[in-house]
Parts: sequence; C-alpha cells; structure tokens
Amino acid sequence: MELEKLREATRSQMPEKRWKHTLGVVESAIELAKRYGGDVQKAELAALLHDYAKAWEIGRMEQIIREQELPPELLVYDKELWHAHVGAWAVQNEHGIDDEEVLDAIRYHTSGRVQMTMLDKIVCLADYIEPGRDYPGVNKLRKLAEVSLEQALVAGYDGTIELLVEKGKLIFPLTVLSRNDLIRQIKS
Amino acid sequence: MELEKLREATRSQMPEKRWKHTLGVVESAIELAKRYGGDVQKAELAALLHDYAKAWEIGRMEQIIREQELPPELLVYDKELWHAHVGAWAVQNEHGIDDEEVLDAIRYHTSGRVQMTMLDKIVCLADYIEPGRDYPGVNKLRKLAEVSLEQALVAGYDGTIELLVEKGKLIFPLTVLSRNDLIRQIKS
Repeated sequence: MELEKLREATRSQMPEKRWKHTLGVVESAIELAKRYGGDVQKAELAALLHDYAKAWEIGRMEQIIREQELPPELLVYDKELWHAHVGAWAVQNEHGIDDEEVLDAIRYHTSGRVQMTMLDKIVCLADYIEPGRDYPGVNKLRKLAEVSLEQALVAGYDGTIELLVEKGKLIFPLTVLSRNDLIRQIKS
Repeated sequence: MELEKLREATRSQMPEKRWKHTLGVVESAIELAKRYGGDVQKAELAALLHDYAKAWEIGRMEQIIREQELPPELLVYDKELWHAHVGAWAVQNEHGIDDEEVLDAIRYHTSGRVQMTMLDKIVCLADYIEPGRDYPGVNKLRKLAEVSLEQALVAGYDGTIELLVEKGKLIFPLTVLSRNDLIRQIKS
C-alpha cells in the first residue's frame, strides 16, 4: 500500500533514532487529531513525513533551497529550519504528495506561521511532545496539550525562544509572529 | 537658550520621577557618545526628548497614531511602544526638531530597528542603563556597555524578550529583527 511505501522511503532517509522520533510524532499527531477533531489521516501522513529531509547533508539542502527557489531568508537563519521546507519540496517531488495542507504542515512544523491551520498546529505540537521527547518543561507541555492546542504551542515556542536567547542565537521572526498570532487567538 | 526651553517643555510633560529618569538617560547618553565617538550634542538632545510623550494619555497617543498615520501596527502591540513614535512626532511638530537622526533615535528607542545608527544605539542603551535603573541584570548591562554598544544592547533586548515571554505578552517583531541584526554585526 501507498502509506507502507512512504514509511519505508522515509525510514531510509534517516538514522534509527530519528525514525523512532518520527513514529512518536505520528502517534502524538493521531492522538491530537482525534482529541481536537482534526483530520486523522492527514495528521498521520504529515507527521510521518515531517522530518523527511532532517538527516540530509547541509550542502544538499542549501543547493535545493537555492535551485528550487525556496524562501532565501532561510539561508540567513538556523540550519534547523531548512529541513522543513526542503522536506516538503522532497516529498512533493519524490513521492508526488500534492495535498497543500499536508505540505504546509511539513513546511512550517519548525517555525510555525501566522494563521496556522489545525493540521499545522497538530504536527508542530506533536513534534514538541512525542513520547520520546525529554527536556525541561515537556510534561507541562503535555498537560497543556490536553487542554488547548494553542496554549501548548505558545509554551513550546516560549521554550524555543528562551533557548535561542540563552544561546545568543538568531530568533526566526516567523516564530515570533506565529506565537503572537496564537496569543491573539487564545485571547479572542 | 533653545536647549533650556526644550528642557522646561519636556519637564512639563511628565511627573518628577520620569523627569529624573530622563536626566539619567541624558547623563548616560553623553557618557556613551564620548566613549564610542558619537555626536555628544545629538545624544544629549535625543536623550532629553526620548520620553517626551511617555506620560501622555493613551487615548491622545492613539488618536495621533491614527490621524498622523504613524505605523498602524503599533496599535496591535504593547502601548509601551507608542510613546516613542508619538514623541518623535510631537517634538517635530511642537518644537520644530527636524534632525532626522535625532527623530529616529527617539522613534526607535524602545523597539530598536534593523541597521541602528550609533545615535539609535546610544539612546536605546542609555535608557536601559541610566543610573536610576534598578532591575536584575542591569549591572551586567553596565559592564557590557563599557566594552561594546552592540553586546550590551543584545543583552538588553534579551532581557526584554525574556520578560515578555514570561508574562505571556506579544513580542514586537522589530525588536527581534533588531537583536538579530546586532548579533550579525557582532559576529562580522
């Protein structure tokens, strides 16, 4: 079946540890989709593919960003952000995935964006809280995820921003815009 | 003399505590301008006027932002940011200050901006470290200010961003862009 082929193709892109993380994100994404009335099949597919290009060589990603005219500002910011856009491009071109909702959820799973769809939120949050994650504050996020997608995501971004500040690293502006937008959604 | 008139006009806009802060910012701005080879007179003038509209009524500031077509996105973000743009407008229109460098230093003293001038940096940093300031980390900033305008400012923005995250408040995107730009300047 199609999904089984995609699973094998995805698994072959990454080391075992990353594959285990991927399976955790799939599990959490399905759970979140069920809890919040999202599309479970799309959540499973986007979660499966979200880190497709994560283990690719930096040079290969950079070449794809340049040649395929992915957002050039990516190159200015942390390489951590590259794999999301490169991954969306790769699954579209290597596997014919053409569901824009799924592609966007892959593309924005690291940075977020303004007006995230439910699918965007599910994949991004699943990535923060999948069972294999272990960092200070992850349990607080898991608790929040039982109550509100938006509140849990804001807490996730808060942690990311604090970490970048602490390390003296650049903050990707889209993450701040995404956090601001979610705070507005919570308040309205 | 002109400066004496401006001092009295500025003093009359604010309560005594804010005026004391203003005098502290003037003192620090002059000191920073001397240390880093900036324009001492412009630093004094911009520092004197930087909080001109700080104590104005919120409704009056909002009206000026709308009627004078100041950046409309200000209204979406923290009211703390309003007085800087309104103040620049006010000193231009009420006192004929027309030095764009001075006006910009007033306008961007809270948010910063990409490609800050030396005067922008001096006023913004003086506002963080003037002798009357007393908050966790201020002495670290004062130490850094002896070494590098940019490093001290990044540390100032770091503190602001951390505080906003902690309070669950929106982060003004320009502050993040400004911090990113300063980190790039430090690294290059």
